[in-house]
Amino acid sequence: MSGNTFGTLFAVTNFGESHGPAIGCVIDGCPPGMELSEADIQPDLDRRRPGTSRHVTQRREPDQVEILSGVYEGRTTGTPICLLIRNTDQRSKDYGDILASFRPGHADYTYLQKYGLRDPRGGGRSSARLTAPMVAAGAVARKWLAQAHGIALRGCMQQLGEIDIPFESWAHVPENPFFAPVADVSHLEAYMDSLRKAGDSCGARIRVTASGVPAGLGEPLFDKLDADIAWAMMGINAVKGVEIGAGFKSITQRGTTHGDAMSPEGFRSNNAGGVLGGISTGQDLEVSIAIKPTSSILSPRESIDVRGAPVEVVTKGRHDPCVGIRATPIAEAMLALVVIEHVLRQRAQNADVRPPLAPIAAGQA
Amino acid sequence: MSGNTFGTLFAVTNFGESHGPAIGCVIDGCPPGMELSEADIQPDLDRRRPGTSRHVTQRREPDQVEILSGVYEGRTTGTPICLLIRNTDQRSKDYGDILASFRPGHADYTYLQKYGLRDPRGGGRSSARLTAPMVAAGAVARKWLAQAHGIALRGCMQQLGEIDIPFESWAHVPENPFFAPVADVSHLEAYMDSLRKAGDSCGARIRVTASGVPAGLGEPLFDKLDADIAWAMMGINAVKGVEIGAGFKSITQRGTTHGDAMSPEGFRSNNAGGVLGGISTGQDLEVSIAIKPTSSILSPRESIDVRGAPVEVVTKGRHDPCVGIRATPIAEAMLALVVIEHVLRQRAQNADVRPPLAPIAAGQA
Amino acid sequence: MSGNTFGTLFAVTNFGESHGPAIGCVIDGCPPGMELSEADIQPDLDRRRPGTSRHVTQRREPDQVEILSGVYEGRTTGTPICLLIRNTDQRSKDYGDILASFRPGHADYTYLQKYGLRDPRGGGRSSARLTAPMVAAGAVARKWLAQAHGIALRGCMQQLGEIDIPFESWAHVPENPFFAPVADVSHLEAYMDSLRKAGDSCGARIRVTASGVPAGLGEPLFDKLDADIAWAMMGINAVKGVEIGAGFKSITQRGTTHGDAMSPEGFRSNNAGGVLGGISTGQDLEVSIAIKPTSSILSPRESIDVRGAPVEVVTKGRHDPCVGIRATPIAEAMLALVVIEHVLRQRAQNADVRPPLAPIAAGQA
Amino acid sequence: MSGNTFGTLFAVTNFGESHGPAIGCVIDGCPPGMELSEADIQPDLDRRRPGTSRHVTQRREPDQVEILSGVYEGRTTGTPICLLIRNTDQRSKDYGDILASFRPGHADYTYLQKYGLRDPRGGGRSSARLTAPMVAAGAVARKWLAQAHGIALRGCMQQLGEIDIPFESWAHVPENPFFAPVADVSHLEAYMDSLRKAGDSCGARIRVTASGVPAGLGEPLFDKLDADIAWAMMGINAVKGVEIGAGFKSITQRGTTHGDAMSPEGFRSNNAGGVLGGISTGQDLEVSIAIKPTSSILSPRESIDVRGAPVEVVTKGRHDPCVGIRATPIAEAMLALVVIEHVLRQRAQNADVRPPLAPIAAGQA
Repeated sequence: MSGNTFGTLFAVTNFGESHGPAIGCVIDGCPPGMELSEADIQPDLDRRRPGTSRHVTQRREPDQVEILSGVYEGRTTGTPICLLIRNTDQRSKDYGDILASFRPGHADYTYLQKYGLRDPRGGGRSSARLTAPMVAAGAVARKWLAQAHGIALRGCMQQLGEIDIPFESWAHVPENPFFAPVADVSHLEAYMDSLRKAGDSCGARIRVTASGVPAGLGEPLFDKLDADIAWAMMGINAVKGVEIGAGFKSITQRGTTHGDAMSPEGFRSNNAGGVLGGISTGQDLEVSIAIKPTSSILSPRESIDVRGAPVEVVTKGRHDPCVGIRATPIAEAMLALVVIEHVLRQRAQNADVRPPLAPIAAGQA
Repeated sequence: MSGNTFGTLFAVTNFGESHGPAIGCVIDGCPPGMELSEADIQPDLDRRRPGTSRHVTQRREPDQVEILSGVYEGRTTGTPICLLIRNTDQRSKDYGDILASFRPGHADYTYLQKYGLRDPRGGGRSSARLTAPMVAAGAVARKWLAQAHGIALRGCMQQLGEIDIPFESWAHVPENPFFAPVADVSHLEAYMDSLRKAGDSCGARIRVTASGVPAGLGEPLFDKLDADIAWAMMGINAVKGVEIGAGFKSITQRGTTHGDAMSPEGFRSNNAGGVLGGISTGQDLEVSIAIKPTSSILSPRESIDVRGAPVEVVTKGRHDPCVGIRATPIAEAMLALVVIEHVLRQRAQNADVRPPLAPIAAGQA
Repeated sequence: MSGNTFGTLFAVTNFGESHGPAIGCVIDGCPPGMELSEADIQPDLDRRRPGTSRHVTQRREPDQVEILSGVYEGRTTGTPICLLIRNTDQRSKDYGDILASFRPGHADYTYLQKYGLRDPRGGGRSSARLTAPMVAAGAVARKWLAQAHGIALRGCMQQLGEIDIPFESWAHVPENPFFAPVADVSHLEAYMDSLRKAGDSCGARIRVTASGVPAGLGEPLFDKLDADIAWAMMGINAVKGVEIGAGFKSITQRGTTHGDAMSPEGFRSNNAGGVLGGISTGQDLEVSIAIKPTSSILSPRESIDVRGAPVEVVTKGRHDPCVGIRATPIAEAMLALVVIEHVLRQRAQNADVRPPLAPIAAGQA
Repeated sequence: MSGNTFGTLFAVTNFGESHGPAIGCVIDGCPPGMELSEADIQPDLDRRRPGTSRHVTQRREPDQVEILSGVYEGRTTGTPICLLIRNTDQRSKDYGDILASFRPGHADYTYLQKYGLRDPRGGGRSSARLTAPMVAAGAVARKWLAQAHGIALRGCMQQLGEIDIPFESWAHVPENPFFAPVADVSHLEAYMDSLRKAGDSCGARIRVTASGVPAGLGEPLFDKLDADIAWAMMGINAVKGVEIGAGFKSITQRGTTHGDAMSPEGFRSNNAGGVLGGISTGQDLEVSIAIKPTSSILSPRESIDVRGAPVEVVTKGRHDPCVGIRATPIAEAMLALVVIEHVLRQRAQNADVRPPLAPIAAGQA
């Protein structure tokens, strides 16, 4: 209820502050018998990790994960899996005067109004660092989804500030620090360099998909698959918008175009983004999210202090000029967590269902 | 878990099918002692009701609500409030051959894959008719929010197909069947007439806001106020996208622009849409949603039947050529339900909090 | 959260007051495809119904159930099943002066302290009448449990006031109004007659069992199968104690006796009551509950009025001199609801589990 | 859902296995601003700790708790509090052959049937060692309950095997290793010594109370305060029965006796155990639980191995001959967790309630 648990059947309870002793999570509900070790989780954490290129924060956190429970002789036991990441790079001196005033665009003011006090070290609980345990939990979910259902999750950057990034190939995504699906990212690097020099930041659009999702996932009225995806995505730090399938483009589409035709060979298009009536169609889930420009910028901003008096705020420290750059593995993890939750829900209620029609082909993505 | 309950502390459990005996909901958790009668609920239902203009479905449903429990001598008792709406206009003959094939863009196929069978009468459970109980529950929430906190919820249409609708004044919204904030809607009427003649449909963009929301609502990590809003909005039938504040526009904004400056007089702008770090700032909540074009259109569509063979589907019956036209009161109700949930959550954990700084003015909307 | 929903995967939301327009419930999560009509539910309601013998309240409520949703052409659709029971016998004049003072042993005082107001008609929400919707929901659960798993639920009275009732045979239970497993109940009838003449009431012990329960149900730490049973049973009006298996007798047992020996033929005893470590063993679930004497008695009692002044209270109206007499079908229904919840939970997480050892025989009950 | 989270508003997620790297819990929902350090928690852990007398297991676990998150400069921040206890005494060789066969009265068989595999080290997840994190979480709850509401929790042993232990004074409880409320425990020590020599074990009855509980806590239908207490108590390892107030004695009571009379001076008795209609009366909560004899005994027992063949099982290792001896601080902690949950729930829904009558005195305990 206090908002630190994600999911119900595959429930991930997140804890920790950016500069406290440790961050981590407890996964409750993981199916038993799956081989699992730190080596299954660390690669995803490494994809999200800071300090991997000059375009992201230079904070050094190895983000080494330790499995504290729920695994016996290399297999999940069905009991809670506690994943612990010790914080190591805690230059708390960088954040000394943050307590005195509010940084525009940050959660400083809202945390104080909510709780009456706040942990200012590195953003405390509001830091994007808290997405690391979700990436770790997502890695566990992804492994199970792949093994049990052949479901695969992928993401990429499709826009950086004003620059649209066309989709060339998934193969390019791991080749550059932007998770961009293009061969040449030199224009993105130049853009980021100029932005950093200007002491400013920009936003990004991230696309994330899931393929191999069986038809029938999602609840019809309120825990619609797309609603839960929207909830998960909007819950990522800095996200301001979410689209499923055609998204906002569907406003200007006609019904004769938008409604994806069906044929014996499968669906003819995927404006639905893989969801109809809140339930998966068997097509790829297609999600797009808008990430706002980083609020931690070197340029001075107008603000107030904790007594309400006007101040000028300059955010020092080591920050991402575009938090969207590291958002791709986070969005993938969140999507994985939504999908596994619904796979388990679906078999809870509907394990005995034998539909009269075999699932049709996913058709055109 | 099966997706028919909205909220936890102010929990609304929805039941019924479009053409079954009745639809309704049970509200659990309403604070006691509030005056409540059907007269508080009926006006909101009437705003959503079909048959009120030539631009919406001509189906005739009086949508008369009956309070079955939870109210004694005109006051809420704190126990469950059951709201019942009997279905009266059940021309089930209109929907006779729907069972045999799948309508593109509809939930026919996904329901069958999920449950193995489906109620085809008027769309059964997937009908937008099931938003009526949410509007009714939202009316209860709105009354309490207004009385206890002075919170007000408003919505309007901001785009109809290709036509942008500028914001002139809230005063115009109740004056036209589109919930458009403009004095002259003749161009919208002409647009809808031509669309109906063409046997086609279009989408819409709806804006919904809440003012008077205190700072401090929303949980920091997963039940962020904006995440729950996204969940609620994406859960409305036909919604394909959700934005908070600057939304997708924030991608191209600079950090120096997007982060709302603060001053002793209040916030200087509201790109955040009233939420920072998942917690309300005290500014207006600003939400925008994309609604897809109606899938029930008179034009023939390519599809398959339940044996997988190709068929041509034409949707007969009485349908809205733009479901967005009636979506405004629905979106308002959903936002009200999210806000009341978080007001109750906030005082559960933080009733004793006395922040060192009085809330600053909401500032520029 | 406000305590009117039972279960999560098979969630039953209860609404209504004893003398309001209607009582009922919404079942969310029922597996689809099961044949269901009012005729499946009414017999269990009739077993619980008042007015069936001179030993229970003479209030006349036909308790006719109506299915409002979730069933199409005689089969469950997987969507919410709303069950409605209209109240017909509302002699509210009997309860006129209840608002002015507190009846000892009743919830009058606690409701007022909790909510600030209360519905006094027939006990309002605190009436045992609200168990009727649970019996109705339990009937749906029982049908599914029987069909899908061969699970059967039974209950009987084992003590009435000071009178121990030995177990002779399940066959006798439906033959007498006490649900007593004995052929001759004349001594029970004489006991009740004398109690009624004395204007007093007594308690009872009810036993309830489930057979055919597969091994593996129940969560290990907090939603232990026995813990959830204890929660469900203690939640029945007037219950003051719950035992599983040997119960309080286990205090004086030795470990050499209590721990049920295992053999290739099955368990040698069932002191565990079918649960070890919170998880079902495959043996019969054995539950025993203590029901307190009815608080509504004709004898005058010392109490206070709503201003705190001393008063003498006499409860008029039509009441059960032993509420335990009608408790057996209620306890069976509650047990059914716990078991179906755990069957669904078990397959959500562990549907793929193939234990190395086939379940052993249930052994001695 | 997988049963490792206790509570909703004050939610405690428990993780770890008896002989894994660590055990612990995450508390989500703790009100902010409370002073908290390890020194507030350790004393309660020390009361539960093994190895403190010759009558309990000689396993040596310092059970040192570490706060990993949720506290900043000595105060709770309202964000998740992770409490970690490293396991240090892991003589896993004691448990080597446990995997091959099932110990009667243990969860060996049920875990295997549920999950298909199990962690045998020290009982794995089914070990009573997992109550330590609950005692730690309970210490946090107790501190808040005491400070915010003056609520105090106490417990004692009232029966050891056949020996009834009269209540002399709470003052004696901390003076002896049994938590017995009597000055002289020499007969209890002799009893335990003879039992240990016989290689056998016995059960116990524990009483636990809460005083200072305000009237109005508890939900009326399903999350009744007494139902949640029953759930919490039955969830403690080895508990087989729970009573509230008069408990099973109420079966033979008359209504004229059981229903606690009310007077301007308060209640005349407390057969209700502090709960009427599921809601607290303001009197002391009175709870009694039955704990079964330890299943880990040195005497050989008849059982089967994992292939179903008959075997004789002897449990070696270091075990409590009566697990009830260390159960008192556990039961107190569980009661504290139930009460804090309901305090927070009550103010969520009913913070604005002003009952017309001031709470009456608790009266006779």
